[in-house]
Amino acid sequence: MTPPYTFPALDRALEPALRQKLDGLAKPPGSLGRMEALALQLGLIQQRLNPKIERAGLFVFAGDHGLTQEGVSSYPASVTIAMVQSFLARRASANAFAHATETEVRVVDAGVAAELAPHPSLLNAKIAPGTQNAAREPAMTRAQCEAALARGAKIAIDAAAEGFDVIAVGEMGIGNSSSAALIMHRLAPAPLEACVGLGTGHDEAGLARKQVALARAAARTDATDPLAVLTEFGGFEIAMMAGAILGAAQARLPVIVDGFIASAAALAAIRLAPEAFPYCIFAHCSAEAGHRLMLESMGASPLLDLGLRLGEGTGGLLCVPLLRAAARILTDIVSLEDVLAGKI
Amino acid sequence: MTPPYTFPALDRALEPALRQKLDGLAKPPGSLGRMEALALQLGLIQQRLNPKIERAGLFVFAGDHGLTQEGVSSYPASVTIAMVQSFLARRASANAFAHATETEVRVVDAGVAAELAPHPSLLNAKIAPGTQNAAREPAMTRAQCEAALARGAKIAIDAAAEGFDVIAVGEMGIGNSSSAALIMHRLAPAPLEACVGLGTGHDEAGLARKQVALARAAARTDATDPLAVLTEFGGFEIAMMAGAILGAAQARLPVIVDGFIASAAALAAIRLAPEAFPYCIFAHCSAEAGHRLMLESMGASPLLDLGLRLGEGTGGLLCVPLLRAAARILTDIVSLEDVLAGKI
Repeated sequence: MTPPYTFPALDRALEPALRQKLDGLAKPPGSLGRMEALALQLGLIQQRLNPKIERAGLFVFAGDHGLTQEGVSSYPASVTIAMVQSFLARRASANAFAHATETEVRVVDAGVAAELAPHPSLLNAKIAPGTQNAAREPAMTRAQCEAALARGAKIAIDAAAEGFDVIAVGEMGIGNSSSAALIMHRLAPAPLEACVGLGTGHDEAGLARKQVALARAAARTDATDPLAVLTEFGGFEIAMMAGAILGAAQARLPVIVDGFIASAAALAAIRLAPEAFPYCIFAHCSAEAGHRLMLESMGASPLLDLGLRLGEGTGGLLCVPLLRAAARILTDIVSLEDVLAGKI
Repeated sequence: MTPPYTFPALDRALEPALRQKLDGLAKPPGSLGRMEALALQLGLIQQRLNPKIERAGLFVFAGDHGLTQEGVSSYPASVTIAMVQSFLARRASANAFAHATETEVRVVDAGVAAELAPHPSLLNAKIAPGTQNAAREPAMTRAQCEAALARGAKIAIDAAAEGFDVIAVGEMGIGNSSSAALIMHRLAPAPLEACVGLGTGHDEAGLARKQVALARAAARTDATDPLAVLTEFGGFEIAMMAGAILGAAQARLPVIVDGFIASAAALAAIRLAPEAFPYCIFAHCSAEAGHRLMLESMGASPLLDLGLRLGEGTGGLLCVPLLRAAARILTDIVSLEDVLAGKI
């Protein structure tokens, strides 16, 4: 996938038939609330009255951030690598939730600052070993940004071809709530102070350092074009997630968007191609300050609000069973007509 | 289980060890939000540092209501029987969600106004073929109420013995949002008008009829004792669900409480035996008016808010994967100590 990132809008021709089917089920119309809206969305995405959501995959995009040189995170950048090893050993939080929700986990090296040994669950899509320090210079080149988008799109398109019914995008990258805050600032848009929060783990002093560094990054450029914003502020994993969301839309694959950082990727994707929006399922309202505002800027309503602030796709995974259940509304529930005709 | 409904309070001796384990996992402490609180609750209920939530069962308690003679529902009472047949044919909404969440469904005839043919998934616990009309006389006798509680408790205790790790309670009974509103009114307590909503399907004229009938029922008795309230206002399925919640607590089994009507059962159970509260997981804030207030009266915070207003246990089922995921926090995630020691 290369610029311009355009593709056909979601075909809504099936909507009346889907609504008629939903309203004709043996239950009061609308009584399953947002689950019915989700069923409708899945039917439209898959273009069928009997959508199927069984095989689910979580793609965890990992990358390192030059911004960590400014002390924007309370964790050293080396934690990114340690966490990638944890994912591959199936011992991270995301793996625990993936186990419970029967979701396959793949780790995508979008730009980890280390050579990673090959592993069956690891996709090597590395653009570079970490971004540049966005407080001082662009996080990446335009060519790197386009490459990240293209590789992300290919990952989603390949997932659809492989038989996944839904993918979730999650991430790991020390410092990436800083990149996400800068992206939100320019693309929501919103005042920078409304976009910066504590991240996964930070104290007040750390937050002050983060605010200073991000103000410096924001002052360095007035970019507002989505490609330019991704290029300026990074990271590789965010750009690649944005690409995966675009690829999912192109492949007609529902894509579950996790918390604050994944939502920043969705924001970039949707600003690049608004047609991608109806393919997104927004999973979870993060405890990270700014996430609700970012979701509102897209017109997105998350399904869950459980106080998560970890990332990794953990919130997205908790929505996988909701999607499976929503699809089952259209395939398993008897119609009122059949009940009245005694066909049960 | 017979009155008085007392049993030992939840043993919290393991809480420090559980908190220490949670805080020692390779993630920022608290970053999984309410999922960590759920993991703690499951560990305390099961009295182990490695709780296990795999096998889940939904028990749908069905009963008919004499109150329907007052026009409190827009559906005829015969719908209760039709829905029981739908559950047994695995074609109701609850079955769809149970399919998606790998939960076994059992239907409990607590008091359906018809003879039901035997079925492998049907438990015959019928107290009587429907309650009396609570607007005119007590819905049931005290002996019937105690029998319903005892049978419900036995169902939960048997489920624990059979190997279920968690049960969810749901219900079907035309007119039962009226019984639930009256129970809430006396046991929350709350003004009657704050307790009466549209139910599963009602228009404004129907709501007015419902309000008149419930005011008449409330004026008939000043009962505030939980057993007396259940006896006066019914229904059999609500009393039996209350018993199941007490039985689950006695058997140290987590019990998922669905929407408005199941919550009224939980309210009765908790007023009978406050020790039952920590065994309850409140699933979902119903779109039914009054549900949030009823939950607050118990100090309960539901996990989901998806606009459901159907009952049947549909909201409870959507929480089953959340419980499985919460347990996996304590069993699957590597400790920070092991990461630092290179044991990954």
